[in-house]
Amino acid sequence: MKNPVQENRMPQDAAWSQLWLCYTPRQDADNRAYVEQVSVSGFAMTDPVIRNAWQELQRGVGGMLDVRPVLREDAAIDRGLSVRRGETPAEGYALMEKNGMLTLTASDEKGVLYGIFHILRQIAQEKPLQGMRELCQPSNPLRMLNHWDNMDGSIERGYAGASFFFRDGEILIDGRTQDYARLAASVGINGVVLNNVNVKEQATWLITERYFDRVARIAEILAGYGIRLFLSLNYAAPMELDGPDSADPLCPEVVGWWRDKMAEVFRSIPNLGGFLVKADSEGRPGPFTYGRTQADGANMLADLVKPYGGVIIWRCFVYNCKQDWRDRKTDRARAGYDNFIGMDGAYHDNVILQIKNGPMDFQIREPVSPLLGGLTRTNQMLEVQIAQEYTGQQIDLCYLIPMFKETLDFKTYCGAAQDTVADIVGGRSFGSRLCGMAAVCNTGGDANWTGHDLAAANLYGFGRLAYDTSLAAEEIAAEWARMTYGCDRKTTDTVTALLMGSRGTYEKYTSPLGIGWMVEPNTHYGPNVDGYEYSRWGTYHRADHLGLGVDRTDAGTGYVRQYHEPNASRYNNVQECPEELLLFFHHLPYTYRLRSGKTLLQHIYDSHFEGVEEVERMIRAWEGLEGRVPDISYRNVRERLERQLHNAKEWRDQVNSYFYRKSGIGDEKGREIF
Amino acid sequence: MKNPVQENRMPQDAAWSQLWLCYTPRQDADNRAYVEQVSVSGFAMTDPVIRNAWQELQRGVGGMLDVRPVLREDAAIDRGLSVRRGETPAEGYALMEKNGMLTLTASDEKGVLYGIFHILRQIAQEKPLQGMRELCQPSNPLRMLNHWDNMDGSIERGYAGASFFFRDGEILIDGRTQDYARLAASVGINGVVLNNVNVKEQATWLITERYFDRVARIAEILAGYGIRLFLSLNYAAPMELDGPDSADPLCPEVVGWWRDKMAEVFRSIPNLGGFLVKADSEGRPGPFTYGRTQADGANMLADLVKPYGGVIIWRCFVYNCKQDWRDRKTDRARAGYDNFIGMDGAYHDNVILQIKNGPMDFQIREPVSPLLGGLTRTNQMLEVQIAQEYTGQQIDLCYLIPMFKETLDFKTYCGAAQDTVADIVGGRSFGSRLCGMAAVCNTGGDANWTGHDLAAANLYGFGRLAYDTSLAAEEIAAEWARMTYGCDRKTTDTVTALLMGSRGTYEKYTSPLGIGWMVEPNTHYGPNVDGYEYSRWGTYHRADHLGLGVDRTDAGTGYVRQYHEPNASRYNNVQECPEELLLFFHHLPYTYRLRSGKTLLQHIYDSHFEGVEEVERMIRAWEGLEGRVPDISYRNVRERLERQLHNAKEWRDQVNSYFYRKSGIGDEKGREIF
Repeated sequence: MKNPVQENRMPQDAAWSQLWLCYTPRQDADNRAYVEQVSVSGFAMTDPVIRNAWQELQRGVGGMLDVRPVLREDAAIDRGLSVRRGETPAEGYALMEKNGMLTLTASDEKGVLYGIFHILRQIAQEKPLQGMRELCQPSNPLRMLNHWDNMDGSIERGYAGASFFFRDGEILIDGRTQDYARLAASVGINGVVLNNVNVKEQATWLITERYFDRVARIAEILAGYGIRLFLSLNYAAPMELDGPDSADPLCPEVVGWWRDKMAEVFRSIPNLGGFLVKADSEGRPGPFTYGRTQADGANMLADLVKPYGGVIIWRCFVYNCKQDWRDRKTDRARAGYDNFIGMDGAYHDNVILQIKNGPMDFQIREPVSPLLGGLTRTNQMLEVQIAQEYTGQQIDLCYLIPMFKETLDFKTYCGAAQDTVADIVGGRSFGSRLCGMAAVCNTGGDANWTGHDLAAANLYGFGRLAYDTSLAAEEIAAEWARMTYGCDRKTTDTVTALLMGSRGTYEKYTSPLGIGWMVEPNTHYGPNVDGYEYSRWGTYHRADHLGLGVDRTDAGTGYVRQYHEPNASRYNNVQECPEELLLFFHHLPYTYRLRSGKTLLQHIYDSHFEGVEEVERMIRAWEGLEGRVPDISYRNVRERLERQLHNAKEWRDQVNSYFYRKSGIGDEKGREIF
Repeated sequence: MKNPVQENRMPQDAAWSQLWLCYTPRQDADNRAYVEQVSVSGFAMTDPVIRNAWQELQRGVGGMLDVRPVLREDAAIDRGLSVRRGETPAEGYALMEKNGMLTLTASDEKGVLYGIFHILRQIAQEKPLQGMRELCQPSNPLRMLNHWDNMDGSIERGYAGASFFFRDGEILIDGRTQDYARLAASVGINGVVLNNVNVKEQATWLITERYFDRVARIAEILAGYGIRLFLSLNYAAPMELDGPDSADPLCPEVVGWWRDKMAEVFRSIPNLGGFLVKADSEGRPGPFTYGRTQADGANMLADLVKPYGGVIIWRCFVYNCKQDWRDRKTDRARAGYDNFIGMDGAYHDNVILQIKNGPMDFQIREPVSPLLGGLTRTNQMLEVQIAQEYTGQQIDLCYLIPMFKETLDFKTYCGAAQDTVADIVGGRSFGSRLCGMAAVCNTGGDANWTGHDLAAANLYGFGRLAYDTSLAAEEIAAEWARMTYGCDRKTTDTVTALLMGSRGTYEKYTSPLGIGWMVEPNTHYGPNVDGYEYSRWGTYHRADHLGLGVDRTDAGTGYVRQYHEPNASRYNNVQECPEELLLFFHHLPYTYRLRSGKTLLQHIYDSHFEGVEEVERMIRAWEGLEGRVPDISYRNVRERLERQLHNAKEWRDQVNSYFYRKSGIGDEKGREIF
């Protein structure tokens, strides 16, 4: 039976979905009375953020409860919603219900906006507004999306169609720009980097006259939703534009050029937050080119943007990408720490180092980067990737919030009283105020924004988690499911279970026990066990006839010593090392016994067979939702799951065959290996 | 010391080299007197071929001997060169010297042209014309170059720059067009396919009004050098142009469309020889799409071009390129034979089946295709590839003429009195007159035409061999060396030795004993042992912990039975199988003892170490020619050899490491394996 509530989720005439802001009709739950009359005090209805919040409220309750709220500017109301300025932390809000009156208190406009979205979430989930008593404040000062969109309209590692920000060298602005801002703001995003960190060709010109007007217009639209615009910067811009033929950060002509450029840019784009810079990485130019430090490079720019309140976000993804595979001493995992730890404290106070969650590159399982907890006197931002570059590319389902939770919960033993990664990037460990979380974004021009309908949960979840790192991954999943598909219990339970199991399933059928990679080079989708084994990228599994894994212990590359104790010893000791990371830290024989009593090899076989079986079960579970979710979504996910099954089988068979052919040891259960 | 003779080889103002037609000054060898006066009888000096021959003679002897020959049309001469029509086979010629008179007799204009080039070769090699008594006739009726040039200017599998036939959808015609024709004619080429067999996009339009004028102009230029122009045809052209929405060869509308099209094409391009067709292959459409046979497809077109003297050359490169790597029954090697043998005799008499030398795809070592000798009632053309797609891409030196000789000399036991491959494609086995050899060409817009200066020896050698399959590879190599670099003995010896050793060296450091592949997918350059092992291309080595190779015996895929006896039994029996093809036909343990007494694995190790050492020796040998060959050529080859050495080391280390890691058995000599 079709669930009629869902029918309007994505009208045929809409060019793109409204995702979790679809505002389809909901059960009342006695909420209507709270939103029929609204009064505002202490905030100007002319403020763009307040105006947008009010419009969102109208739109949301109109769609969900068929209510047209009345704004009462003249007087205090005694029933309904009262919005007023009060004592809450920045970007925070309080929601209090009493006697039919719901009071939203906020210290600033963003707090109001977030509070309104909170009310709408409550209504969408058919939860009562009655009795609400909540004080919400952001866990992270900065909550950012990084888009890897190129100006030709392509998206680096984008799996959901073409860019909706750029096309053919032009900046696009249409209704989707605002919908994007609404979606981002609804989950608490307050910063957006518009263009790819690999700034090439036309994108270098974003900081010139040619594009100022339209960049400023986008900045204005985003600002209306409490979001600051940032741009990725080409460190070699002086050389490619009209500046000196150098990018040396200590060269006076270079500094002078940048000084003038920054004055011009901030004058032309008033709301600009600053810049994201990928330097000295994977072929990008940087200070190392001139024998300068990363700090030299970052500080030069930071000093120049400081007068305008600007920030420089400097990526720590610096490693030797021309390694010789024969060399077992050089360890890519070490590179981020080795390149940045020495200058801890040398970065100026409006520089933020942006650090990927793991030391490698967004694999399905990595230890936490030792820079997080290593650096104690430097602003830090955690970078995660919801684009699923290595985790299924929005073909395979992989809900990443549980993984991000693990990272945030990781205890670094950095010496601060509050010492988890969440504490560090939230600013609690070292009192930083420029810090937070950034996600490489997963959106594109597809009607459903994320290619796979369920991949929108990663976008939703990242924002929610960045705003409140105490939320549970499962809670976020269920919330997203209800927001998107309505409150049918079976739908919510099924979708939540699919999301929650998906990361483990993906891990099972891909590369085992933290070793990572084994992926098709370049595309990064599908298996190729030796794909990177003899290449220059520093990503090896070192499998031979007897075993596999990379020895990063004291006896190996020594990477473990980049962690504080007791983490270092725990990773160093094969008995104590968390098994899910065993092969990241240790080279072990196939006959090594895991705690389960299985050999390492049998674990590989078993987990790969299990992974495929789990995908088959996922398909059956999803099939149970036919008629309960909109047809278009049902078919989208069904098609993706079929492709995932095909991929999972390829992974299973290639990985198992690879190790069987190499080890000569068969499966204990005699299953088919090729 | 510089060899002054070479200085003018490539003048600084020339945009491209003249290669072996550089005509730099030579020692006289008493040849001058024979070319000072020339008389012609029986041929019209107005004929374009005769005119071009005369101009070539002037140019050649002017450059080499500083002679300006005088044409005496009025009377017979009593000293010098007399050219006259006489009794020789088509495209043949006789050269007879007597009492200071050199007589060139030919049955047709092409014979004259080839005879003149023969005289110039003699002079360039400083060999005396005195005493010449030669009757030369082509071993193969058709001697063709296939260009894989695309109309955007790219060349599929081209490694020598952009196309000089096409650019940005236009046809290029300039001095290079004629120089190309001269070079091709000088070695006896009489047919050229201008465009890529994968006919896509703009190239489909070559058979339309849009391009007729310029195609006809190229055809005319080529015809002036005895070369017929052919085009590659898009089998789906009716659907992509203005025809019916089908390419079914038995559909009357399709046939009608083609009939009109052929009338239009041959009317507009009078010299056109016909068409080359790649159908039902690697994604190209073809008769199989409509449930028709390959013969249905080829005959339909052949009947329509027959009134114009046209020929259809139909490629036999048809196989399943979407194979499942898990499937060990499907054997790509079988595909050509399986797809074509059943229709032997069904092809009309102006159809030629073009058959790659081996059953796979231009690997460094393959057995001869069993279609050659399998087909007995069908016109056949041998297709080889001098583009070096899998054999070093004109970075690594790989002189292929010895390999082509092996193919030509292969005894098929097809039942004819003359039963080698040379006999079959030369028309001697079954009396065919439409047959011969075609090479996928290695030229491009680089000034030296072939990227690697020494790779021009493959272009030269292919033509010479196709004209005279009895020539020895070494003879051709030395001839090319003298033509190109002059007659310095050390230069000739060194270059000849480098060329002659190069195929063996390349084979040593790449994939062992006929198994092929192990190459980087897509680019086809450099090692990737498992690169194709789990892919859909049907190119597997099946290496496991115990051994490697593909069992194509009776116990395996049965491929051996596509050969006539005793070849079939010889390949089937591991004791009798030629060792260089051992792994193509047999899956063997690493511990298998070769005739040398070495194990299979030790052979792999040894040959890979040897291959690199040989490249190092090649570099030293080439360094001995510094000052003896033009600087520009010295540096070109030196740079290529350095890159070859790097490549050879990668192959050595990856292949050896791969098998060491898989087998667990080390090198007996304890050399470094990673």
